[in-house]
Amino acid sequence: MQLLEERIRKEGVVRGTEILKVDSFLNHQMDPMLMEEMGKEFHRLFSGERVDRVLTIEASGIAVAVMTALCFRCPVVFARKSKTSNQSEDVYAAKAFSFTHGRENTVTVAKEYLHAGERVLLIDDFLANGCALRALRDIVLQAGAVPVGAGIVIEKAFQPGGNELRAEGLRIESLARIRSMSETEGIQFC
Amino acid sequence: MQLLEERIRKEGVVRGTEILKVDSFLNHQMDPMLMEEMGKEFHRLFSGERVDRVLTIEASGIAVAVMTALCFRCPVVFARKSKTSNQSEDVYAAKAFSFTHGRENTVTVAKEYLHAGERVLLIDDFLANGCALRALRDIVLQAGAVPVGAGIVIEKAFQPGGNELRAEGLRIESLARIRSMSETEGIQFC
Repeated sequence: MQLLEERIRKEGVVRGTEILKVDSFLNHQMDPMLMEEMGKEFHRLFSGERVDRVLTIEASGIAVAVMTALCFRCPVVFARKSKTSNQSEDVYAAKAFSFTHGRENTVTVAKEYLHAGERVLLIDDFLANGCALRALRDIVLQAGAVPVGAGIVIEKAFQPGGNELRAEGLRIESLARIRSMSETEGIQFC
Repeated sequence: MQLLEERIRKEGVVRGTEILKVDSFLNHQMDPMLMEEMGKEFHRLFSGERVDRVLTIEASGIAVAVMTALCFRCPVVFARKSKTSNQSEDVYAAKAFSFTHGRENTVTVAKEYLHAGERVLLIDDFLANGCALRALRDIVLQAGAVPVGAGIVIEKAFQPGGNELRAEGLRIESLARIRSMSETEGIQFC
């Protein structure tokens, strides 16, 4: 998505070879017009699919997920992250190691908001090692629902998550795919 | 806002006299069409104001704040909550006691996303004791910016936050104001 790649080039801050800060339009400050365009683009990309529900994870995924769900006229659920293991019988839960925060989170969704047979579109802001996306997919499968695919804003294609999950059969559409990045040479897209 | 009051009446779950669960359309699952309507309503209510920026707090405030900012064609910033005190010089910070979680959070906004003289509209999902809203207002004031008012989805008018903050001069527009609620008698709106 050209609009997004331009924005990343202009405002993204690279730290080392693995960290990309896009706090000016996605992760802290958000540009609502860009969120709307990204929601429309995910709707276009998955327009061949029936989507009953959009599933994302707090907090940065929420804005684009809501815009996407608005296009599909379906509800959106955001999975909750907590440091403690939630043993409640009322939730689907999956563990996800957060490289950003250096800890393992438990990701949960209340059982009443995911149902067997539903077709669920996953949305998240970043895909790198794939831990969060894998947790979301596993939660959908626990519910007996069908993950129709994942819409990702920024994929770090030089990290293994995207290709591993594609090899496992998950359709992934990323609006920007970064092939490599460094502080000196900037960002190269795929 | 009648659409919202009907939804609260139909789907809200009252626990005791102080807890209202609206996980089916606001706090876990979200209805994007309702979010859009609420954004339009906040835009209508504050249409006499110049709004340069919308400020909310993660995670449940994000959806309605983005929809509001889309109407104002301005950026939205979500303040971050953490259990640890953030001593960085790069952030504005305020403490907010969370009655929901029974702990004190530090709420932070990076200094680069709030500027002196800007007119900032605060948006949040709930107003009860006013701790989160007070923290947002204080952060705006630390930046030398102007809090033009607060748009609240659900105000528990039987708790003191709303009236205290109004008495301190903050304009607050709540889409639903609950006068009282109980498990046996249900929800009464103002």
